[in-house]
Amino acid sequence: MVEAITSMEEDFAQWYTDVVKKADLIDYTSVKGCMVFKPAGYAIWELIQSQMDARFKETGVENVYLPMFIPESLLEKEKDHVEGFAPEVAWVTMGGLQPLQERMCVRPTSETLFCDFYKNEVHSYRDLPKNYNQWCSVVRWEKETRPFLRSREFLWQEGHTIHATAEEAEERTIKMLNVYADFCEQVLAIPVVKGQKTEKEKFAGAMATYTIEALMHDGKALQSGTSHNFGDGFARAFGIQFTDKDNTLKYPFQTSWGTTTRLIGAIIMVHGDNSGLVLPPRVAPTQVMIVPIRQQAEGVLEKAEEIRQALAAAGIRVKVDDTEKSPGWKFAEQEMRGIPVRVEIGPKDIEAGKAVIARRDTGEKQEVTITELAAKIPALLDTIQGDMLTRARERRDANTFTARTKEEFEQIFAEKTGFVKAMWCGDRACEDEIKEKMAVTSRCMPFEQEHLADTCVCCGRPAKHMVYWGKAY
Amino acid sequence: MVEAITSMEEDFAQWYTDVVKKADLIDYTSVKGCMVFKPAGYAIWELIQSQMDARFKETGVENVYLPMFIPESLLEKEKDHVEGFAPEVAWVTMGGLQPLQERMCVRPTSETLFCDFYKNEVHSYRDLPKNYNQWCSVVRWEKETRPFLRSREFLWQEGHTIHATAEEAEERTIKMLNVYADFCEQVLAIPVVKGQKTEKEKFAGAMATYTIEALMHDGKALQSGTSHNFGDGFARAFGIQFTDKDNTLKYPFQTSWGTTTRLIGAIIMVHGDNSGLVLPPRVAPTQVMIVPIRQQAEGVLEKAEEIRQALAAAGIRVKVDDTEKSPGWKFAEQEMRGIPVRVEIGPKDIEAGKAVIARRDTGEKQEVTITELAAKIPALLDTIQGDMLTRARERRDANTFTARTKEEFEQIFAEKTGFVKAMWCGDRACEDEIKEKMAVTSRCMPFEQEHLADTCVCCGRPAKHMVYWGKAY
Repeated sequence: MVEAITSMEEDFAQWYTDVVKKADLIDYTSVKGCMVFKPAGYAIWELIQSQMDARFKETGVENVYLPMFIPESLLEKEKDHVEGFAPEVAWVTMGGLQPLQERMCVRPTSETLFCDFYKNEVHSYRDLPKNYNQWCSVVRWEKETRPFLRSREFLWQEGHTIHATAEEAEERTIKMLNVYADFCEQVLAIPVVKGQKTEKEKFAGAMATYTIEALMHDGKALQSGTSHNFGDGFARAFGIQFTDKDNTLKYPFQTSWGTTTRLIGAIIMVHGDNSGLVLPPRVAPTQVMIVPIRQQAEGVLEKAEEIRQALAAAGIRVKVDDTEKSPGWKFAEQEMRGIPVRVEIGPKDIEAGKAVIARRDTGEKQEVTITELAAKIPALLDTIQGDMLTRARERRDANTFTARTKEEFEQIFAEKTGFVKAMWCGDRACEDEIKEKMAVTSRCMPFEQEHLADTCVCCGRPAKHMVYWGKAY
Repeated sequence: MVEAITSMEEDFAQWYTDVVKKADLIDYTSVKGCMVFKPAGYAIWELIQSQMDARFKETGVENVYLPMFIPESLLEKEKDHVEGFAPEVAWVTMGGLQPLQERMCVRPTSETLFCDFYKNEVHSYRDLPKNYNQWCSVVRWEKETRPFLRSREFLWQEGHTIHATAEEAEERTIKMLNVYADFCEQVLAIPVVKGQKTEKEKFAGAMATYTIEALMHDGKALQSGTSHNFGDGFARAFGIQFTDKDNTLKYPFQTSWGTTTRLIGAIIMVHGDNSGLVLPPRVAPTQVMIVPIRQQAEGVLEKAEEIRQALAAAGIRVKVDDTEKSPGWKFAEQEMRGIPVRVEIGPKDIEAGKAVIARRDTGEKQEVTITELAAKIPALLDTIQGDMLTRARERRDANTFTARTKEEFEQIFAEKTGFVKAMWCGDRACEDEIKEKMAVTSRCMPFEQEHLADTCVCCGRPAKHMVYWGKAY
């Protein structure tokens, strides 16, 4: 099993594909560009969903479900939006044996459907705000696909809110970006940079797009969640109006925000190593695997089951691997699957009243008294969770560089892959030039701005913003 | 609010539509035949999902997610299956700006995709069984649609399992039907009849289809969940084989089983009354609504909030309605929404240290000492849950009739709507004749057979099975 995986230093892309396949997360299908989420992959998504959903609900968000189809005339109502999405949607043209009078696309995102819905729902300031979210799958007809990172169908959540004032919409946009950032750090152990997208990189139809950007093990950036403020653009396009307290008709303000199954790709590429997947305990479907040693010996499987019950009672997601494989094979398999903690228990351990526990993230082993396992492991899982975030942050910081001049900027990207902080004049032409010459894009204008220099790293004119630049997935 | 609803005795169909709309469960959309699940509707589905999913997992089921598209060539592999579904699927023919080389339908059900997946996964007896399930939406191009009961897109779960032996497949088929039946009774407070579908009524491609049938308030039947045993038919059509312990190649055996958002329709039509929805406590998103009386008076809202916190700490889903409506309006609104228990609290109550609690299902009121609310309400919710099941069972039994002769059979259906138990020869011609003449269908051959007579209620030849007959949604 372990031999079959390419090392990440040799070929990162191949390493990624190997992990995805060998950790049993994904299978390819007869449907080009679409994947099967196998139990180990889907269970990670379920843990992401349940913990993120709880955080949404704490902020007053309610879940809804809207249709998966969008009639063409509805998609076309907001000009920028349709231009952004029409080239990459799947069109339904037949229903049963009949051609449709109007073709419909499978939703690539649901702003237009939510607007259609709000039009019925929102009449008075009393109807505002609406803070809605849906968990669903969407379709974008991508040419090149990669498991979790880019596929024709993917799972996501899309939040859609509508407000009486521009200030409230902006506040919600930022609030949800912060929910995402906290979630990534606390649950996925992935540090992120929060900032605003440039005009060039913002969402089709948005007034402002905010993003969280994470750095993968290979130094490439991954856009991990976005939050959009639409102003009243969609409301105007769809004719949504409400009577305000002052008895005048006004256009409301909208936001949307989304994260997808690409977060699973981020977990793999931030934490994985050459033995396979490394899962942060909070999203590990199995947090502890108990491996019996000499399991045919009397009392071993019984003791393993006894420990399992004690750990399960302490709220730990735990299993016993009692398959007929060798312990060494089981160790490698669970390492490949990223299970945070392994408990080894054999006849000698039982005699001594002890078990060996091994951390997946560091490989560290220690002996623990069997009766203390249920008390010690929850704390160990917390330690692992914290250590993984610390290491990811250190690696991110070590791969974040500063360029003050064009020469520095070019030299860094010639030698390294990572985030590069540099000043920018705000002109699209410079962004285009940088992308064309160096194949890097602006990741975001971070909320935490620094004044690195007075001039744009590209054109030398006065700088307006500090930008994070990088190669991106 | 209350005036606007049609009484169920006057026009049951209109009553249903009124409840769905006034209880804020559903909205219609610009997408013909598709619905919006509003927060109150979707929250019921979330409670169904989480409780049913836990029951699945207890039986060893794992969740997965497969693509929403099925290439035409895949759909066509099993002959009966494609004949059943091809006339009612939506076809995607364009991806982005290009016509597809092969058109794909949006899944109406996923047997064919699971077979395609199993073909990669199943090679040896060691790979069996696989007990998979997915929560997703499916599309069937229905001509006539009704909220929850029949729509072009609906939400459901579909379980798909594969086994080494026919016995194991049959055992799983029955096990999941029992999970459904228990879930309906224990969680939804809906009694069901378990049985087998006739050849005429079974699922396209199945060897045997089992069903749970519930009786609605108007005497019509609702098929509420089905479980199918496919034998090795799909495995043969898809060429899925495994090497068994005896080292020979064999075809495995498959099952599938599903329930949908029509369960929400069943809740409405079994428990609802002329004041609106009545939710069983276990699927009520809000179980207790606290209504402050004279809420401007000093201390009322504070006390309401104090009670809310005490009830929430006791694990109850509870809210305070502190909107600026009159108490009477609030009462009617919460009755319409089916909230199981109302707590009324005003200045006089506070002085006396008491609150009034009212049951939605019976209208019964009682005074309870404020400090005892958190202890008493959980038990009250259990009582309501149990009473709702008892009443539904009594109504079902009172509307289940027995016919021993053709005359009795015709007379009952001429006068009444309900389940009619009658003997059947097993011949499709009699089923067709009964459907044509009396507009009723065989609902199932119940597991609990009774010998009511020697002869078929239609043709007079020797009877083989007792059948439940009825008008169905």
